[in-house]
Amino acid sequence: MLQAKVTIVGLGLMGGSLALSLRLAQRVARTPYPTHITIVDTNPATLQAAERLADVVTSDFAVGVAEAELVILATPVRTVLHLLAELAVLRPEGCMVLDLGSTKRDICAAMAALPTGFGAIGGHPMCGKETAGFSSATPDLYRDKTFVLCRNGRTTEQIETLVLNLLAIVGAQPLFLPPDVHDEMVAAISHLPYVVAGSLMRTAAGMADDRLWTVSASGFRDTARVSGTDPRMMLDILMTNKTAVLQQLQRYQAEITAVTALIEAGDEEKLAAWLVETQKDYFAYREKKG
Amino acid sequence: MLQAKVTIVGLGLMGGSLALSLRLAQRVARTPYPTHITIVDTNPATLQAAERLADVVTSDFAVGVAEAELVILATPVRTVLHLLAELAVLRPEGCMVLDLGSTKRDICAAMAALPTGFGAIGGHPMCGKETAGFSSATPDLYRDKTFVLCRNGRTTEQIETLVLNLLAIVGAQPLFLPPDVHDEMVAAISHLPYVVAGSLMRTAAGMADDRLWTVSASGFRDTARVSGTDPRMMLDILMTNKTAVLQQLQRYQAEITAVTALIEAGDEEKLAAWLVETQKDYFAYREKKG
Repeated sequence: MLQAKVTIVGLGLMGGSLALSLRLAQRVARTPYPTHITIVDTNPATLQAAERLADVVTSDFAVGVAEAELVILATPVRTVLHLLAELAVLRPEGCMVLDLGSTKRDICAAMAALPTGFGAIGGHPMCGKETAGFSSATPDLYRDKTFVLCRNGRTTEQIETLVLNLLAIVGAQPLFLPPDVHDEMVAAISHLPYVVAGSLMRTAAGMADDRLWTVSASGFRDTARVSGTDPRMMLDILMTNKTAVLQQLQRYQAEITAVTALIEAGDEEKLAAWLVETQKDYFAYREKKG
Repeated sequence: MLQAKVTIVGLGLMGGSLALSLRLAQRVARTPYPTHITIVDTNPATLQAAERLADVVTSDFAVGVAEAELVILATPVRTVLHLLAELAVLRPEGCMVLDLGSTKRDICAAMAALPTGFGAIGGHPMCGKETAGFSSATPDLYRDKTFVLCRNGRTTEQIETLVLNLLAIVGAQPLFLPPDVHDEMVAAISHLPYVVAGSLMRTAAGMADDRLWTVSASGFRDTARVSGTDPRMMLDILMTNKTAVLQQLQRYQAEITAVTALIEAGDEEKLAAWLVETQKDYFAYREKKG
Protein backbone atom coordinates (compact mmCIF):
# COMPACT_ATOMS: atom_id res chain seq x y z
CA MET A 1 0.00 0.00 0.00
CA LEU A 2 1.33 3.36 -1.03
CA GLN A 3 1.49 6.26 1.34
CA ALA A 4 2.04 9.76 0.06
CA LYS A 5 1.79 13.40 0.87
CA VAL A 6 0.02 14.76 -2.20
CA THR A 7 -0.07 18.38 -3.35
CA ILE A 8 -2.64 19.38 -5.98
CA VAL A 9 -1.82 22.63 -7.77
CA GLY A 10 -4.84 24.32 -9.37
CA LEU A 11 -8.33 23.60 -8.11
CA GLY A 12 -10.27 23.79 -11.38
CA LEU A 13 -12.52 21.12 -12.85
CA MET A 14 -9.72 18.51 -13.04
CA GLY A 15 -7.80 19.30 -9.87
CA GLY A 16 -11.02 19.90 -7.94
CA SER A 17 -12.60 16.62 -9.02
CA LEU A 18 -9.39 14.79 -8.14
CA ALA A 19 -9.31 16.40 -4.69
CA LEU A 20 -12.98 15.54 -4.07
CA SER A 21 -12.44 11.95 -5.13
CA LEU A 22 -9.24 11.48 -3.09
CA ARG A 23 -10.76 13.09 0.01
CA LEU A 24 -13.75 10.76 -0.24
CA ALA A 25 -11.46 7.72 -0.63
CA GLN A 26 -9.29 8.91 2.25
CA ARG A 27 -12.30 9.04 4.54
CA VAL A 28 -13.68 5.61 3.75
CA ALA A 29 -10.34 3.73 3.60
CA ARG A 30 -9.07 1.80 6.61
CA THR A 31 -5.54 3.09 5.99
CA PRO A 32 -5.94 6.72 4.95
CA TYR A 33 -4.44 7.36 1.54
CA PRO A 34 -3.15 9.82 0.57
CA THR A 35 -1.93 10.46 4.10
CA HIS A 36 -1.90 14.20 3.60
CA ILE A 37 -3.43 16.53 0.99
CA THR A 38 -2.23 20.05 0.23
CA ILE A 39 -4.04 22.31 -2.22
CA VAL A 40 -2.42 25.27 -3.97
CA ASP A 41 -4.60 27.82 -5.74
CA THR A 42 -4.31 31.54 -6.30
CA ASN A 43 -8.04 32.30 -6.10
CA PRO A 44 -9.03 33.23 -2.51
CA ALA A 45 -12.66 32.05 -2.92
CA THR A 46 -11.52 28.70 -4.31
CA LEU A 47 -9.01 28.30 -1.48
CA GLN A 48 -11.76 28.84 1.08
CA ALA A 49 -13.94 26.22 -0.62
CA ALA A 50 -10.91 23.89 -0.62
CA GLU A 51 -10.47 23.91 3.12
CA ARG A 52 -12.70 20.91 3.74
CA LEU A 53 -10.82 18.94 1.08
CA ALA A 54 -7.27 19.37 2.30
CA ASP A 55 -5.04 19.33 5.34
CA VAL A 56 -3.26 22.44 4.10
CA VAL A 57 -4.44 25.09 1.66
CA THR A 58 -2.11 27.79 0.40
CA SER A 59 -1.75 30.29 -2.41
CA ASP A 60 2.04 29.91 -2.28
CA PHE A 61 3.42 27.29 -4.67
CA ALA A 62 6.77 27.12 -2.78
CA VAL A 63 5.00 26.43 0.52
CA GLY A 64 2.63 23.93 -1.08
CA VAL A 65 5.33 21.78 -2.65
CA ALA A 66 7.96 22.04 0.11
CA GLU A 67 7.12 18.69 1.72
CA ALA A 68 5.16 17.01 -1.07
CA GLU A 69 6.04 13.49 -2.14
CA LEU A 70 3.72 13.72 -5.16
CA VAL A 71 2.98 17.04 -6.87
CA ILE A 72 -0.01 17.04 -9.24
CA LEU A 73 -0.02 20.02 -11.59
CA ALA A 74 -3.63 20.67 -12.65
CA THR A 75 -3.32 24.00 -14.46
CA PRO A 76 -3.39 25.12 -18.12
CA VAL A 77 -0.47 23.70 -20.13
CA ARG A 78 1.84 26.70 -20.14
CA THR A 79 1.40 27.18 -16.40
CA VAL A 80 2.45 23.53 -15.99
CA LEU A 81 5.61 24.30 -17.99
CA HIS A 82 6.32 27.30 -15.81
CA LEU A 83 5.69 25.38 -12.57
CA LEU A 84 7.95 22.49 -13.64
CA ALA A 85 10.80 24.97 -14.02
CA GLU A 86 10.04 26.42 -10.58
CA LEU A 87 9.86 22.95 -9.06
CA ALA A 88 13.35 22.12 -10.30
CA VAL A 89 14.60 25.11 -8.32
CA LEU A 90 12.46 24.62 -5.20
CA ARG A 91 13.06 20.87 -4.91
CA PRO A 92 16.50 20.27 -6.48
CA GLU A 93 16.69 16.85 -4.79
CA GLY A 94 13.53 15.89 -6.71
CA CYS A 95 10.05 14.54 -5.92
CA MET A 96 7.32 12.80 -7.85
CA VAL A 97 5.32 14.78 -10.42
CA LEU A 98 2.16 14.15 -12.43
CA ASP A 99 0.39 16.76 -14.54
CA LEU A 100 -3.12 16.87 -16.01
CA GLY A 101 -2.38 19.20 -18.95
CA SER A 102 -4.24 18.95 -22.26
CA THR A 103 -1.16 18.62 -24.51
CA LYS A 104 1.78 16.42 -23.67
CA ARG A 105 4.75 16.95 -25.98
CA ASP A 106 6.10 20.18 -24.45
CA ILE A 107 5.28 19.04 -20.91
CA CYS A 108 7.01 15.67 -21.29
CA ALA A 109 10.06 17.41 -22.79
CA ALA A 110 10.13 19.71 -19.75
CA MET A 111 9.71 16.73 -17.42
CA ALA A 112 12.63 14.92 -19.09
CA ALA A 113 14.76 17.99 -18.42
CA LEU A 114 14.12 17.90 -14.64
CA PRO A 115 17.04 17.00 -12.31
CA THR A 116 17.72 13.26 -11.98
CA GLY A 117 16.08 12.97 -8.53
CA PHE A 118 12.62 13.53 -10.05
CA GLY A 119 10.12 10.86 -11.03
CA ALA A 120 7.68 12.38 -13.51
CA ILE A 121 4.90 11.26 -15.82
CA GLY A 122 2.54 13.18 -18.10
CA GLY A 123 -1.19 12.66 -17.63
CA HIS A 124 -4.35 13.69 -19.45
CA PRO A 125 -7.74 12.59 -18.15
CA MET A 126 -10.27 12.48 -21.03
CA CYS A 127 -13.24 13.87 -19.16
CA GLY A 128 -13.61 17.55 -19.92
CA LYS A 129 -16.72 19.64 -19.59
CA GLU A 130 -17.53 22.97 -21.21
CA THR A 131 -18.00 24.40 -17.74
CA ALA A 132 -14.66 24.85 -16.06
CA GLY A 133 -13.72 25.63 -12.49
CA PHE A 134 -14.08 24.06 -9.08
CA SER A 135 -17.84 24.73 -9.06
CA SER A 136 -18.23 22.11 -11.83
CA ALA A 137 -16.03 19.53 -10.09
CA THR A 138 -17.53 16.19 -9.03
CA PRO A 139 -15.91 13.25 -7.18
CA ASP A 140 -16.96 10.82 -9.93
CA LEU A 141 -15.62 12.82 -12.90
CA TYR A 142 -12.83 10.30 -13.57
CA ARG A 143 -14.92 7.16 -13.11
CA ASP A 144 -14.59 4.81 -16.14
CA LYS A 145 -12.88 7.55 -18.16
CA THR A 146 -9.70 7.06 -20.19
CA PHE A 147 -6.67 8.65 -18.47
CA VAL A 148 -3.76 8.97 -20.90
CA LEU A 149 -0.28 8.53 -19.37
CA CYS A 150 2.85 9.64 -21.23
CA ARG A 151 6.20 8.23 -20.20
CA ASN A 152 9.26 10.41 -20.63
CA GLY A 153 12.96 10.57 -19.68
CA ARG A 154 12.09 11.02 -15.97
CA THR A 155 9.45 8.32 -15.68
CA THR A 156 10.44 5.86 -12.94
CA GLU A 157 8.77 2.67 -11.80
CA GLN A 158 7.90 4.45 -8.56
CA ILE A 159 5.91 7.32 -10.17
CA GLU A 160 4.22 4.88 -12.54
CA THR A 161 3.07 2.61 -9.71
CA LEU A 162 1.96 5.56 -7.61
CA VAL A 163 -0.08 7.08 -10.44
CA LEU A 164 -1.67 3.74 -11.40
CA ASN A 165 -2.78 3.41 -7.77
CA LEU A 166 -4.17 6.92 -7.88
CA LEU A 167 -6.11 6.09 -11.06
CA ALA A 168 -7.50 2.96 -9.43
CA ILE A 169 -8.79 5.09 -6.53
CA VAL A 170 -10.61 7.54 -8.81
CA GLY A 171 -11.78 4.75 -11.13
CA ALA A 172 -10.01 5.94 -14.30
CA GLN A 173 -8.70 3.64 -17.07
CA PRO A 174 -4.99 4.17 -17.83
CA LEU A 175 -3.86 4.28 -21.47
CA PHE A 176 -0.13 4.69 -22.17
CA LEU A 177 0.67 6.71 -25.28
CA PRO A 178 3.84 8.46 -26.52
CA PRO A 179 3.42 12.26 -26.08
CA ASP A 180 3.50 12.90 -29.86
CA VAL A 181 0.84 10.30 -30.54
CA HIS A 182 -1.32 11.73 -27.76
CA ASP A 183 -1.04 15.24 -29.17
CA GLU A 184 -1.95 14.11 -32.70
CA MET A 185 -4.94 12.16 -31.43
CA VAL A 186 -6.35 14.94 -29.25
CA ALA A 187 -5.88 17.37 -32.14
CA ALA A 188 -8.37 15.21 -34.08
CA ILE A 189 -10.90 14.36 -31.36
CA SER A 190 -10.70 17.34 -29.02
CA HIS A 191 -8.96 20.43 -30.42
CA LEU A 192 -10.49 20.23 -33.92
CA PRO A 193 -14.01 19.74 -32.44
CA TYR A 194 -13.40 22.87 -30.35
CA VAL A 195 -12.43 25.04 -33.34
CA VAL A 196 -15.33 23.57 -35.35
CA ALA A 197 -17.86 24.23 -32.56
CA GLY A 198 -16.45 27.68 -31.81
CA SER A 199 -16.69 28.72 -35.45
CA LEU A 200 -20.27 27.43 -35.55
CA MET A 201 -21.15 29.40 -32.43
CA ARG A 202 -19.64 32.57 -33.90
CA THR A 203 -21.47 32.04 -37.21
CA ALA A 204 -24.85 31.64 -35.50
CA ALA A 205 -24.28 34.49 -33.04
CA GLY A 206 -23.25 36.69 -35.98
CA MET A 207 -26.84 36.46 -37.27
CA ALA A 208 -27.76 38.71 -34.32
CA ASP A 209 -31.32 37.34 -34.28
CA ASP A 210 -32.53 36.06 -30.91
CA ARG A 211 -35.40 34.15 -32.55
CA LEU A 212 -32.68 31.72 -33.65
CA TRP A 213 -32.38 30.44 -30.09
CA THR A 214 -36.13 29.79 -29.85
CA VAL A 215 -35.95 27.71 -33.01
CA SER A 216 -32.69 25.98 -32.03
CA ALA A 217 -32.91 22.54 -30.47
CA SER A 218 -30.63 19.81 -29.15
CA GLY A 219 -28.76 19.52 -32.46
CA PHE A 220 -27.35 23.02 -32.24
CA ARG A 221 -26.89 22.76 -28.47
CA ASP A 222 -24.73 19.65 -28.69
CA THR A 223 -22.76 20.65 -31.77
CA ALA A 224 -21.92 24.04 -30.21
CA ARG A 225 -21.41 22.86 -26.61
CA VAL A 226 -17.61 22.79 -26.41
CA SER A 227 -17.43 26.40 -27.64
CA GLY A 228 -18.01 27.25 -23.97
CA THR A 229 -14.55 25.87 -23.08
CA ASP A 230 -12.30 28.02 -20.87
CA PRO A 231 -10.42 30.40 -23.21
CA ARG A 232 -7.24 30.36 -21.11
CA MET A 233 -6.99 26.58 -21.23
CA MET A 234 -7.78 26.57 -24.95
CA LEU A 235 -5.20 29.25 -25.77
CA ASP A 236 -2.47 27.11 -24.18
CA ILE A 237 -3.69 24.08 -26.11
CA LEU A 238 -3.68 25.85 -29.48
CA MET A 239 -0.28 27.45 -28.80
CA THR A 240 1.38 24.18 -27.71
CA ASN A 241 -0.23 21.85 -30.26
CA LYS A 242 -0.22 24.16 -33.25
CA THR A 243 1.23 21.80 -35.85
CA ALA A 244 -1.11 18.90 -35.14
CA VAL A 245 -4.15 21.20 -34.88
CA LEU A 246 -3.35 22.90 -38.19
CA GLN A 247 -2.94 19.52 -39.85
CA GLN A 248 -6.38 18.41 -38.66
CA LEU A 249 -7.89 21.74 -39.66
CA GLN A 250 -6.49 21.27 -43.15
CA ARG A 251 -8.02 17.78 -43.40
CA TYR A 252 -11.32 19.14 -42.07
CA GLN A 253 -11.36 22.07 -44.50
CA ALA A 254 -10.83 19.68 -47.40
CA GLU A 255 -13.79 17.60 -46.21
CA ILE A 256 -16.22 20.49 -45.73
CA THR A 257 -15.12 22.13 -49.00
CA ALA A 258 -15.83 18.88 -50.84
CA VAL A 259 -19.33 18.48 -49.42
CA THR A 260 -20.07 22.18 -50.02
CA ALA A 261 -19.17 21.65 -53.68
CA LEU A 262 -21.57 18.70 -53.88
CA ILE A 263 -24.40 20.81 -52.41
CA GLU A 264 -23.58 23.69 -54.76
CA ALA A 265 -23.53 21.42 -57.81
CA GLY A 266 -26.77 19.77 -56.69
CA ASP A 267 -25.00 16.46 -57.34
CA GLU A 268 -27.70 14.31 -55.76
CA GLU A 269 -26.02 10.95 -56.29
CA LYS A 270 -22.64 11.90 -54.81
CA LEU A 271 -24.24 13.92 -52.03
CA ALA A 272 -26.44 10.95 -51.08
CA ALA A 273 -23.33 8.73 -50.99
CA TRP A 274 -21.53 11.25 -48.74
CA LEU A 275 -24.49 11.35 -46.33
CA VAL A 276 -24.74 7.55 -46.18
CA GLU A 277 -20.99 7.17 -45.61
CA THR A 278 -21.03 9.82 -42.88
CA GLN A 279 -23.83 8.08 -41.00
CA LYS A 280 -21.93 4.78 -41.35
CA ASP A 281 -18.81 6.40 -39.87
CA TYR A 282 -20.89 7.72 -36.96
CA PHE A 283 -22.50 4.37 -36.23
CA ALA A 284 -19.11 2.60 -36.45
CA TYR A 285 -17.66 5.09 -33.95
CA ARG A 286 -20.62 4.64 -31.59
CA GLU A 287 -20.31 0.88 -31.78
CA LYS A 288 -16.57 0.91 -31.12
CA LYS A 289 -16.98 3.44 -28.31
CA GLY A 290 -19.62 1.18 -26.74
CA MET B 1 -63.87 20.88 -28.69
CA LEU B 2 -62.51 19.71 -32.00
CA GLN B 3 -63.31 16.31 -33.38
CA ALA B 4 -61.31 14.91 -36.24
CA LYS B 5 -60.42 11.81 -38.11
CA VAL B 6 -56.64 12.11 -38.33
CA THR B 7 -54.34 10.31 -40.76
CA ILE B 8 -50.60 10.29 -40.03
CA VAL B 9 -48.48 9.47 -43.06
CA GLY B 10 -44.99 8.17 -42.21
CA LEU B 11 -44.33 6.56 -38.86
CA GLY B 12 -40.76 7.70 -38.26
CA LEU B 13 -39.45 9.60 -35.25
CA MET B 14 -41.81 12.58 -35.75
CA GLY B 15 -44.93 10.79 -36.98
CA GLY B 16 -44.42 7.97 -34.50
CA SER B 17 -44.00 10.28 -31.52
CA LEU B 18 -47.09 12.21 -32.59
CA ALA B 19 -49.11 8.99 -32.88
CA LEU B 20 -47.90 7.82 -29.45
CA SER B 21 -48.77 11.14 -27.87
CA LEU B 22 -52.22 11.40 -29.52
CA ARG B 23 -53.11 7.80 -28.67
CA LEU B 24 -52.20 8.43 -25.04
CA ALA B 25 -54.29 11.63 -24.96
CA GLN B 26 -57.17 9.85 -26.65
CA ARG B 27 -57.21 7.18 -23.96
CA VAL B 28 -57.17 9.50 -20.97
CA ALA B 29 -59.56 12.15 -22.38
CA ARG B 30 -63.26 12.12 -21.45
CA THR B 31 -64.18 12.97 -25.06
CA PRO B 32 -61.80 10.95 -27.24
CA TYR B 33 -59.82 13.19 -29.55
CA PRO B 34 -58.88 12.62 -32.26
CA THR B 35 -61.95 10.44 -32.76
CA HIS B 36 -60.17 8.19 -35.22
CA ILE B 37 -56.49 7.62 -36.10
CA THR B 38 -55.23 6.13 -39.36
CA ILE B 39 -51.55 5.41 -39.95
CA VAL B 40 -49.98 5.08 -43.38
CA ASP B 41 -46.50 3.60 -43.74
CA THR B 42 -44.82 1.51 -46.39
CA ASN B 43 -42.66 -0.56 -44.02
CA PRO B 44 -44.46 -3.79 -43.03
CA ALA B 45 -42.65 -4.11 -39.67
CA THR B 46 -43.51 -0.52 -38.76
CA LEU B 47 -47.14 -1.04 -39.75
CA GLN B 48 -47.36 -4.04 -37.46
CA ALA B 49 -45.92 -2.02 -34.57
CA ALA B 50 -48.43 0.73 -35.40
CA GLU B 51 -51.48 -1.43 -34.91
CA ARG B 52 -51.88 -0.61 -31.22
CA LEU B 53 -51.66 3.12 -32.02
CA ALA B 54 -54.32 3.40 -34.68
CA ASP B 55 -57.83 2.39 -35.65
CA VAL B 56 -56.69 1.69 -39.19
CA VAL B 57 -53.20 0.95 -40.51
CA THR B 58 -52.48 0.75 -44.22
CA SER B 59 -49.61 0.93 -46.66
CA ASP B 60 -51.89 2.54 -49.27
CA PHE B 61 -51.85 6.33 -49.20
CA ALA B 62 -55.12 6.55 -51.19
CA VAL B 63 -56.91 4.30 -48.68
CA GLY B 64 -55.41 6.11 -45.71
CA VAL B 65 -56.50 9.60 -46.76
CA ALA B 66 -59.88 8.71 -48.29
CA GLU B 67 -61.91 9.68 -45.21
CA ALA B 68 -59.41 11.82 -43.32
CA GLU B 69 -60.40 15.23 -42.02
CA LEU B 70 -56.81 16.07 -41.11
CA VAL B 71 -53.86 14.59 -43.00
CA ILE B 72 -50.47 14.91 -41.29
CA LEU B 73 -47.56 14.32 -43.66
CA ALA B 74 -44.57 13.16 -41.60
CA THR B 75 -42.11 12.12 -44.31
CA PRO B 76 -38.90 13.60 -45.77
CA VAL B 77 -39.50 16.92 -47.54
CA ARG B 78 -39.59 15.76 -51.14
CA THR B 79 -41.99 12.94 -50.26
CA VAL B 80 -44.25 15.59 -48.69
CA LEU B 81 -44.16 17.51 -51.99
CA HIS B 82 -45.04 14.35 -53.90
CA LEU B 83 -47.87 13.42 -51.51
CA LEU B 84 -49.38 16.92 -51.64
CA ALA B 85 -49.68 16.54 -55.41
CA GLU B 86 -51.31 13.13 -54.96
CA LEU B 87 -53.66 14.49 -52.33
CA ALA B 88 -54.94 17.17 -54.72
CA VAL B 89 -55.97 14.36 -57.07
CA LEU B 90 -57.33 11.94 -54.45
CA ARG B 91 -59.30 14.57 -52.52
CA PRO B 92 -60.19 17.27 -55.08
CA GLU B 93 -62.87 18.62 -52.72
CA GLY B 94 -60.10 19.29 -50.17
CA CYS B 95 -59.35 18.38 -46.56
CA MET B 96 -57.08 19.75 -43.84
CA VAL B 97 -53.32 19.22 -44.15
CA LEU B 98 -50.34 19.70 -41.84
CA ASP B 99 -46.81 18.55 -42.62
CA LEU B 100 -43.77 18.05 -40.38
CA GLY B 101 -41.07 18.56 -43.02
CA SER B 102 -37.67 20.09 -42.23
CA THR B 103 -37.77 22.88 -44.84
CA LYS B 104 -40.83 24.98 -45.50
CA ARG B 105 -40.49 27.18 -48.58
CA ASP B 106 -41.14 24.53 -51.25
CA ILE B 107 -43.79 22.79 -49.14
CA CYS B 108 -45.71 26.01 -48.43
CA ALA B 109 -45.59 26.90 -52.13
CA ALA B 110 -47.03 23.46 -52.94
CA MET B 111 -49.70 23.91 -50.26
CA ALA B 112 -50.69 27.29 -51.70
CA ALA B 113 -51.17 25.57 -55.06
CA LEU B 114 -53.69 23.04 -53.65
CA PRO B 115 -57.36 23.34 -54.78
CA THR B 116 -59.40 25.95 -52.89
CA GLY B 117 -61.21 23.40 -50.70
CA PHE B 118 -58.01 22.63 -48.80
CA GLY B 119 -56.94 24.11 -45.48
CA ALA B 120 -53.18 23.68 -45.14
CA ILE B 121 -50.37 24.83 -42.86
CA GLY B 122 -46.67 24.02 -42.81
CA GLY B 123 -45.20 22.68 -39.56
CA HIS B 124 -41.73 21.89 -38.25
CA PRO B 125 -41.29 20.56 -34.74
CA MET B 126 -37.83 21.46 -33.41
CA CYS B 127 -37.10 18.20 -31.62
CA GLY B 128 -34.91 16.01 -33.79
CA LYS B 129 -32.68 13.19 -32.68
CA GLU B 130 -29.75 11.63 -34.50
CA THR B 131 -31.56 8.29 -34.27
CA ALA B 132 -34.47 8.22 -36.68
CA GLY B 133 -37.36 5.82 -37.05
CA PHE B 134 -40.33 4.65 -35.04
CA SER B 135 -38.05 2.75 -32.63
CA SER B 136 -36.76 6.11 -31.33
CA ALA B 137 -40.23 7.65 -30.99
CA THR B 138 -41.50 8.70 -27.55
CA PRO B 139 -44.86 10.20 -26.51
CA ASP B 140 -43.16 13.17 -24.84
CA LEU B 141 -40.90 14.14 -27.77
CA TYR B 142 -42.86 17.35 -28.45
CA ARG B 143 -43.29 18.43 -24.83
CA ASP B 144 -42.08 22.05 -24.30
CA LYS B 145 -40.44 22.07 -27.75
CA THR B 146 -40.82 24.87 -30.29
CA PHE B 147 -43.14 23.88 -33.17
CA VAL B 148 -42.77 26.27 -36.11
CA LEU B 149 -45.95 26.95 -38.10
CA CYS B 150 -45.82 28.53 -41.57
CA ARG B 151 -48.93 30.13 -42.97
CA ASN B 152 -49.44 30.05 -46.72
CA GLY B 153 -52.09 30.75 -49.37
CA ARG B 154 -54.21 27.82 -48.18
CA THR B 155 -54.05 28.48 -44.44
CA THR B 156 -57.57 28.86 -43.03
CA GLU B 157 -58.73 29.72 -39.53
CA GLN B 158 -60.02 26.16 -39.25
CA ILE B 159 -56.67 24.42 -39.90
CA GLU B 160 -54.88 26.93 -37.67
CA THR B 161 -57.26 26.28 -34.74
CA LEU B 162 -57.12 22.54 -35.27
CA VAL B 163 -53.32 22.48 -35.32
CA LEU B 164 -53.01 24.75 -32.28
CA ASN B 165 -55.26 22.30 -30.42
CA LEU B 166 -53.09 19.44 -31.58
CA LEU B 167 -49.97 21.24 -30.33
CA ALA B 168 -51.64 21.85 -26.97
CA ILE B 169 -52.32 18.11 -26.66
CA VAL B 170 -48.69 17.15 -27.33
CA GLY B 171 -47.37 20.05 -25.25
CA ALA B 172 -45.49 21.88 -28.03
CA GLN B 173 -45.00 25.65 -28.23
CA PRO B 174 -46.22 27.20 -31.51
CA LEU B 175 -44.05 29.79 -33.26
CA PHE B 176 -45.39 31.38 -36.46
CA LEU B 177 -42.71 32.22 -39.02
CA PRO B 178 -42.83 33.00 -42.76
CA PRO B 179 -41.48 29.96 -44.70
CA ASP B 180 -38.45 31.88 -46.00
CA VAL B 181 -37.48 33.09 -42.54
CA HIS B 182 -37.86 29.56 -41.17
CA ASP B 183 -35.62 28.13 -43.88
CA GLU B 184 -32.92 30.74 -43.30
CA MET B 185 -33.00 30.16 -39.55
CA VAL B 186 -32.82 26.37 -39.71
CA ALA B 187 -29.98 26.67 -42.25
CA ALA B 188 -28.00 28.40 -39.47
CA ILE B 189 -29.01 26.33 -36.42
CA SER B 190 -29.73 22.92 -37.89
CA HIS B 191 -28.43 22.32 -41.43
CA LEU B 192 -25.07 24.05 -40.93
CA PRO B 193 -24.47 22.12 -37.67
CA TYR B 194 -25.17 18.92 -39.59
CA VAL B 195 -22.63 19.67 -42.34
CA VAL B 196 -20.12 20.81 -39.69
CA ALA B 197 -20.60 17.66 -37.58
CA GLY B 198 -20.61 15.37 -40.60
CA SER B 199 -17.33 16.83 -41.89
CA LEU B 200 -15.84 16.41 -38.40
CA MET B 201 -16.96 12.78 -38.27
CA ARG B 202 -15.45 12.10 -41.70
CA THR B 203 -12.18 13.80 -40.73
CA ALA B 204 -11.80 11.73 -37.56
CA ALA B 205 -12.89 8.47 -39.21
CA GLY B 206 -10.38 9.19 -41.99
CA MET B 207 -7.57 8.78 -39.45
CA ALA B 208 -8.42 5.05 -39.50
CA ASP B 209 -7.06 4.61 -35.97
CA ASP B 210 -9.43 2.92 -33.52
CA ARG B 211 -7.38 4.17 -30.54
CA LEU B 212 -8.95 7.55 -31.31
CA TRP B 213 -12.27 6.33 -29.95
CA THR B 214 -10.69 5.20 -26.69
CA VAL B 215 -9.20 8.65 -26.22
CA SER B 216 -12.35 10.48 -27.39
CA ALA B 217 -14.71 11.79 -24.73
CA SER B 218 -17.97 13.71 -24.45
CA GLY B 219 -16.59 16.67 -26.43
CA PHE B 220 -16.19 14.68 -29.61
CA ARG B 221 -19.37 12.69 -28.96
CA ASP B 222 -21.55 15.79 -28.69
CA THR B 223 -19.90 17.76 -31.50
CA ALA B 224 -20.24 14.79 -33.87
CA ARG B 225 -23.67 13.57 -32.73
CA VAL B 226 -25.90 14.92 -35.49
CA SER B 227 -23.69 13.29 -38.14
CA GLY B 228 -25.82 10.20 -37.41
CA THR B 229 -28.88 11.91 -38.96
CA ASP B 230 -30.93 9.93 -41.48
CA PRO B 231 -29.27 10.45 -44.92
CA ARG B 232 -32.57 10.40 -46.80
CA MET B 233 -34.06 13.16 -44.67
CA MET B 234 -30.84 15.17 -44.91
CA LEU B 235 -30.59 14.83 -48.69
CA ASP B 236 -34.07 16.35 -49.07
CA ILE B 237 -33.12 19.15 -46.70
CA LEU B 238 -29.93 20.03 -48.56
CA MET B 239 -31.64 19.82 -51.96
CA THR B 240 -34.61 22.01 -50.93
CA ASN B 241 -32.71 24.57 -48.84
CA LYS B 242 -29.58 24.85 -50.95
CA THR B 243 -29.32 28.65 -51.17
CA ALA B 244 -29.69 29.29 -47.43
CA VAL B 245 -27.38 26.40 -46.51
CA LEU B 246 -24.68 27.58 -48.92
CA GLN B 247 -24.95 31.09 -47.50
CA GLN B 248 -24.41 29.80 -43.95
CA LEU B 249 -21.56 27.56 -45.12
CA GLN B 250 -19.88 30.58 -46.66
CA ARG B 251 -20.20 32.55 -43.40
CA TYR B 252 -18.90 29.54 -41.46
CA GLN B 253 -15.94 29.02 -43.79
CA ALA B 254 -14.96 32.66 -43.35
CA GLU B 255 -15.06 32.21 -39.57
CA ILE B 256 -13.00 29.01 -39.43
CA THR B 257 -10.52 30.32 -42.01
CA ALA B 258 -9.99 33.43 -39.87
CA VAL B 259 -9.31 31.50 -36.67
CA THR B 260 -7.07 29.04 -38.54
CA ALA B 261 -5.00 32.02 -39.73
CA LEU B 262 -4.68 33.25 -36.12
CA ILE B 263 -3.46 29.81 -34.98
CA GLU B 264 -1.05 29.60 -37.91
CA ALA B 265 0.36 33.08 -37.22
CA GLY B 266 0.62 32.29 -33.51
CA ASP B 267 -1.10 35.63 -32.93
CA GLU B 268 -1.65 35.09 -29.23
CA GLU B 269 -3.44 38.36 -28.52
CA LYS B 270 -6.01 38.09 -31.31
CA LEU B 271 -6.46 34.36 -30.74
CA ALA B 272 -7.13 34.97 -27.03
CA ALA B 273 -9.71 37.63 -27.97
CA TRP B 274 -11.40 35.19 -30.37
CA LEU B 275 -11.58 32.50 -27.67
CA VAL B 276 -13.01 34.91 -25.10
CA GLU B 277 -15.60 36.25 -27.55
CA THR B 278 -16.63 32.73 -28.55
CA GLN B 279 -17.18 31.68 -24.94
CA LYS B 280 -19.22 34.90 -24.41
CA ASP B 281 -21.39 34.04 -27.42
CA TYR B 282 -21.95 30.55 -26.04
CA PHE B 283 -22.91 31.78 -22.59
CA ALA B 284 -25.23 34.44 -24.08
CA TYR B 285 -26.95 31.73 -26.16
CA ARG B 286 -27.30 29.44 -23.12
CA GLU B 287 -28.75 32.26 -21.07
CA LYS B 288 -31.27 33.24 -23.75
CA LYS B 289 -32.18 29.61 -24.37
CA GLY B 290 -32.79 29.18 -20.64
